Amino acid sequence: MNQPITLIDELDSLTDHWSQRVVAEANGNLFKVAKGVGSTNWHHHDDQDETFLLVAGTLEVHLRDRVVELRPGDLFVVPRGVEHRPVAAMEARFLIIGPSITSNAAGGKPDAPSAVPDSQDA
Amino acid sequence: MNQPITLIDELDSLTDHWSQRVVAEANGNLFKVAKGVGSTNWHHHDDQDETFLLVAGTLEVHLRDRVVELRPGDLFVVPRGVEHRPVAAMEARFLIIGPSITSNAAGGKPDAPSAVPDSQDA
Repeated sequence: MNQPITLIDELDSLTDHWSQRVVAEANGNLFKVAKGVGSTNWHHHDDQDETFLLVAGTLEVHLRDRVVELRPGDLFVVPRGVEHRPVAAMEARFLIIGPSITSNAAGGKPDAPSAVPDSQDA
Repeated sequence: MNQPITLIDELDSLTDHWSQRVVAEANGNLFKVAKGVGSTNWHHHDDQDETFLLVAGTLEVHLRDRVVELRPGDLFVVPRGVEHRPVAAMEARFLIIGPSITSNAAGGKPDAPSAVPDSQDA
Protein backbone atom coordinates (compact mmCIF):
# COMPACT_ATOMS: atom_id res chain seq x y z
CA MET A 1 0.00 0.00 0.00
CA ASN A 2 1.21 3.50 -0.76
CA GLN A 3 3.07 5.42 1.89
CA PRO A 4 3.41 9.19 2.15
CA ILE A 5 6.62 10.61 0.71
CA THR A 6 8.51 13.37 2.50
CA LEU A 7 10.22 15.15 -0.36
CA ILE A 8 12.86 16.83 1.77
CA ASP A 9 13.99 13.48 3.17
CA GLU A 10 14.20 11.96 -0.29
CA LEU A 11 16.23 14.93 -1.46
CA ASP A 12 18.53 14.75 1.55
CA SER A 13 19.49 11.21 0.64
CA LEU A 14 20.06 11.92 -3.06
CA THR A 15 23.78 11.71 -3.82
CA ASP A 16 24.13 12.85 -7.43
CA HIS A 17 23.29 16.10 -9.12
CA TRP A 18 20.99 16.06 -12.16
CA SER A 19 19.96 12.50 -11.47
CA GLN A 20 16.29 11.80 -10.91
CA ARG A 21 14.90 9.37 -8.35
CA VAL A 22 11.35 8.12 -8.75
CA VAL A 23 9.45 8.51 -5.48
CA ALA A 24 5.87 7.88 -6.65
CA GLU A 25 3.78 6.91 -9.66
CA ALA A 26 0.21 7.88 -10.48
CA ASN A 27 -1.81 7.62 -13.68
CA GLY A 28 1.24 6.70 -15.74
CA ASN A 29 3.18 9.72 -14.49
CA LEU A 30 6.30 9.57 -12.37
CA PHE A 31 7.13 11.92 -9.51
CA LYS A 32 10.91 12.29 -9.39
CA VAL A 33 13.11 14.22 -6.99
CA ALA A 34 16.32 15.78 -8.24
CA LYS A 35 18.90 18.33 -7.20
CA GLY A 36 21.33 20.27 -9.28
CA VAL A 37 24.03 22.87 -9.21
CA GLY A 38 25.45 24.41 -12.36
CA SER A 39 23.39 23.43 -15.38
CA THR A 40 22.49 20.67 -17.79
CA ASN A 41 23.03 20.86 -21.52
CA TRP A 42 20.32 22.43 -23.68
CA HIS A 43 17.75 19.78 -24.53
CA HIS A 44 14.10 19.20 -25.28
CA HIS A 45 11.57 16.39 -24.99
CA ASP A 46 9.55 15.73 -28.12
CA ASP A 47 7.13 13.37 -26.45
CA GLN A 48 6.11 15.16 -23.28
CA ASP A 49 5.72 18.27 -21.19
CA GLU A 50 8.08 18.48 -18.22
CA THR A 51 6.82 19.94 -14.94
CA PHE A 52 9.17 21.42 -12.35
CA LEU A 53 8.10 22.13 -8.76
CA LEU A 54 10.82 23.81 -6.76
CA VAL A 55 11.32 22.53 -3.20
CA ALA A 56 14.42 24.44 -2.06
CA GLY A 57 16.92 26.94 -3.46
CA THR A 58 16.49 28.95 -6.64
CA LEU A 59 16.31 27.45 -10.11
CA GLU A 60 16.46 29.30 -13.39
CA VAL A 61 14.86 27.55 -16.33
CA HIS A 62 16.58 29.00 -19.36
CA LEU A 63 14.53 29.01 -22.54
CA ARG A 64 15.87 30.29 -25.85
CA ASP A 65 13.95 33.55 -25.54
CA ARG A 66 13.74 34.14 -21.79
CA VAL A 67 14.70 32.97 -18.32
CA VAL A 68 12.09 31.76 -15.82
CA GLU A 69 13.18 32.03 -12.20
CA LEU A 70 11.64 29.60 -9.74
CA ARG A 71 11.56 29.83 -5.96
CA PRO A 72 10.30 27.22 -3.49
CA GLY A 73 6.63 26.50 -4.09
CA ASP A 74 6.77 27.63 -7.73
CA LEU A 75 5.60 25.31 -10.48
CA PHE A 76 6.53 25.57 -14.15
CA VAL A 77 5.63 23.44 -17.15
CA VAL A 78 8.14 23.25 -20.02
CA PRO A 79 5.95 22.35 -23.00
CA ARG A 80 7.01 19.43 -25.17
CA GLY A 81 9.46 20.34 -27.89
CA VAL A 82 10.69 23.51 -26.17
CA GLU A 83 14.45 23.74 -25.69
CA HIS A 84 15.44 24.41 -22.12
CA ARG A 85 18.29 24.24 -19.67
CA PRO A 86 17.92 24.38 -15.88
CA VAL A 87 20.58 26.53 -14.22
CA ALA A 88 21.31 26.76 -10.49
CA ALA A 89 24.05 29.00 -9.07
CA MET A 90 23.73 27.18 -5.74
CA GLU A 91 22.16 23.78 -5.19
CA ALA A 92 18.48 23.67 -6.10
CA ARG A 93 16.14 20.87 -5.07
CA PHE A 94 13.03 20.10 -7.04
CA LEU A 95 10.32 17.67 -8.06
CA ILE A 96 9.90 16.71 -11.71
CA ILE A 97 6.65 15.21 -12.98
CA GLY A 98 6.30 13.48 -16.31
CA PRO A 99 5.18 10.30 -18.05
CA SER A 100 6.96 7.06 -17.26
CA ILE A 101 7.97 6.50 -20.87
CA THR A 102 11.00 8.84 -20.92
CA SER A 103 14.46 7.52 -21.49
CA ASN A 104 17.18 8.89 -19.26
CA ALA A 105 19.13 9.80 -22.37
CA ALA A 106 16.63 12.55 -23.04
CA GLY A 107 17.22 14.24 -19.70
CA GLY A 108 19.99 16.61 -20.74
CA LYS A 109 22.50 15.70 -18.06
CA PRO A 110 25.71 17.73 -18.18
CA ASP A 111 28.67 16.09 -19.87
CA ALA A 112 30.48 15.80 -16.54
CA PRO A 113 27.83 15.38 -13.89
CA SER A 114 28.80 16.64 -10.48
CA ALA A 115 28.51 14.24 -7.56
CA VAL A 116 28.45 14.72 -3.85
CA PRO A 117 31.94 13.84 -2.53
CA ASP A 118 32.31 10.34 -1.09
CA SER A 119 29.19 9.11 -2.80
CA GLN A 120 29.30 5.32 -2.77
CA ASP A 121 26.76 4.61 -5.44
CA ALA A 122 27.75 6.95 -8.25
CA MET B 1 3.55 30.71 -23.44
CA ASN B 2 3.55 29.10 -20.03
CA GLN B 3 4.23 31.21 -16.99
CA PRO B 4 5.53 30.03 -13.62
CA ILE B 5 2.84 29.46 -11.00
CA THR B 6 3.38 30.53 -7.41
CA LEU B 7 1.23 28.06 -5.51
CA ILE B 8 0.98 30.13 -2.34
CA ASP B 9 -0.39 33.10 -4.30
CA GLU B 10 -2.95 30.92 -6.05
CA LEU B 11 -4.00 29.49 -2.70
CA ASP B 12 -4.23 32.94 -1.12
CA SER B 13 -6.78 33.99 -3.71
CA LEU B 14 -8.89 30.84 -3.46
CA THR B 15 -12.19 31.69 -1.78
CA ASP B 16 -13.95 28.35 -1.25
CA HIS B 17 -12.98 25.29 0.71
CA TRP B 18 -12.84 21.91 -1.05
CA SER B 19 -13.02 23.56 -4.46
CA GLN B 20 -10.20 22.95 -6.86
CA ARG B 21 -8.71 25.55 -9.19
CA VAL B 22 -6.68 24.39 -12.17
CA VAL B 23 -3.35 26.24 -12.32
CA ALA B 24 -1.48 24.18 -14.92
CA GLU B 25 -1.85 21.29 -17.36
CA ALA B 26 0.81 18.86 -18.56
CA ASN B 27 0.55 15.55 -20.39
CA GLY B 28 -3.21 15.35 -19.88
CA ASN B 29 -2.89 15.89 -16.14
CA LEU B 30 -4.21 18.89 -14.25
CA PHE B 31 -2.46 20.62 -11.38
CA LYS B 32 -5.12 21.97 -9.06
CA VAL B 33 -4.81 24.01 -5.87
CA ALA B 34 -7.33 23.55 -3.09
CA LYS B 35 -7.78 24.33 0.55
CA GLY B 36 -10.02 22.73 3.10
CA VAL B 37 -11.05 22.72 6.71
CA GLY B 38 -13.22 20.01 8.20
CA SER B 39 -13.61 17.13 5.78
CA THR B 40 -15.23 15.92 2.60
CA ASN B 41 -17.54 12.92 2.40
CA TRP B 42 -16.03 9.49 1.92
CA HIS B 43 -15.50 8.88 -1.79
CA HIS B 44 -13.34 7.12 -4.33
CA HIS B 45 -12.31 7.56 -7.94
CA ASP B 46 -12.68 4.47 -10.09
CA ASP B 47 -10.82 5.92 -13.05
CA GLN B 48 -7.71 7.45 -11.57
CA ASP B 49 -5.15 7.77 -8.82
CA GLU B 50 -5.29 11.05 -6.91
CA THR B 51 -2.06 12.70 -5.79
CA PHE B 52 -1.94 15.14 -2.89
CA LEU B 53 1.04 17.43 -2.25
CA LEU B 54 0.65 19.43 0.93
CA VAL B 55 1.67 23.10 0.73
CA ALA B 56 0.64 24.44 4.17
CA GLY B 57 -1.05 23.18 7.31
CA THR B 58 -1.67 19.56 8.22
CA LEU B 59 -3.92 17.21 6.28
CA GLU B 60 -5.08 13.78 7.34
CA VAL B 61 -6.07 11.46 4.54
CA HIS B 62 -8.44 8.98 6.15
CA LEU B 63 -8.54 5.57 4.52
CA ARG B 64 -10.83 2.79 5.73
CA ASP B 65 -7.99 1.00 7.50
CA ARG B 66 -5.63 3.81 8.52
CA VAL B 67 -4.95 7.53 8.63
CA VAL B 68 -2.11 9.12 6.67
CA GLU B 69 -0.93 12.44 8.09
CA LEU B 70 0.62 14.90 5.67
CA ARG B 71 2.78 17.91 6.47
CA PRO B 72 4.07 20.58 4.06
CA GLY B 73 6.28 18.97 1.41
CA ASP B 74 4.66 15.55 1.82
CA LEU B 75 3.23 13.77 -1.21
CA PHE B 76 0.69 10.95 -1.12
CA VAL B 77 -1.01 8.99 -3.88
CA VAL B 78 -4.50 7.62 -3.21
CA PRO B 79 -4.75 4.69 -5.62
CA ARG B 80 -7.79 4.46 -7.86
CA GLY B 81 -10.75 2.75 -6.27
CA VAL B 82 -9.59 3.36 -2.70
CA GLU B 83 -12.12 5.07 -0.45
CA HIS B 84 -10.73 8.14 1.25
CA ARG B 85 -11.69 11.32 3.02
CA PRO B 86 -9.35 14.26 3.60
CA VAL B 87 -9.70 15.78 7.07
CA ALA B 88 -8.20 19.07 8.29
CA ALA B 89 -8.68 20.34 11.83
CA MET B 90 -7.36 23.72 10.73
CA GLU B 91 -7.16 25.00 7.16
CA ALA B 92 -4.88 22.90 4.97
CA ARG B 93 -3.60 24.04 1.58
CA PHE B 94 -2.57 21.55 -1.04
CA LEU B 95 -1.95 20.67 -4.66
CA ILE B 96 -3.92 17.87 -6.31
CA ILE B 97 -2.67 16.21 -9.47
CA GLY B 98 -4.81 14.01 -11.68
CA PRO B 99 -6.08 13.44 -15.21
CA SER B 100 -8.22 16.08 -16.83
CA ILE B 101 -11.12 13.67 -17.36
CA THR B 102 -12.58 13.82 -13.84
CA SER B 103 -16.03 15.15 -13.23
CA ASN B 104 -16.40 17.51 -10.30
CA ALA B 105 -19.19 15.30 -8.99
CA ALA B 106 -16.58 12.66 -8.14
CA GLY B 107 -14.68 14.99 -5.85
CA GLY B 108 -16.45 14.18 -2.58
CA LYS B 109 -17.26 17.73 -1.57
CA PRO B 110 -18.99 18.01 1.81
CA ASP B 111 -22.77 18.39 1.72
CA ALA B 112 -22.50 21.94 3.01
CA PRO B 113 -19.23 23.33 1.69
CA SER B 114 -17.70 26.01 3.85
CA ALA B 115 -16.87 29.30 2.19
CA VAL B 116 -14.71 32.18 3.18
CA PRO B 117 -17.01 34.95 4.48
CA ASP B 118 -17.82 37.71 1.98
CA SER B 119 -16.81 35.60 -0.96
CA GLN B 120 -18.25 37.20 -4.09
CA ASP B 121 -17.97 34.26 -6.43
CA ALA B 122 -19.39 31.35 -4.44
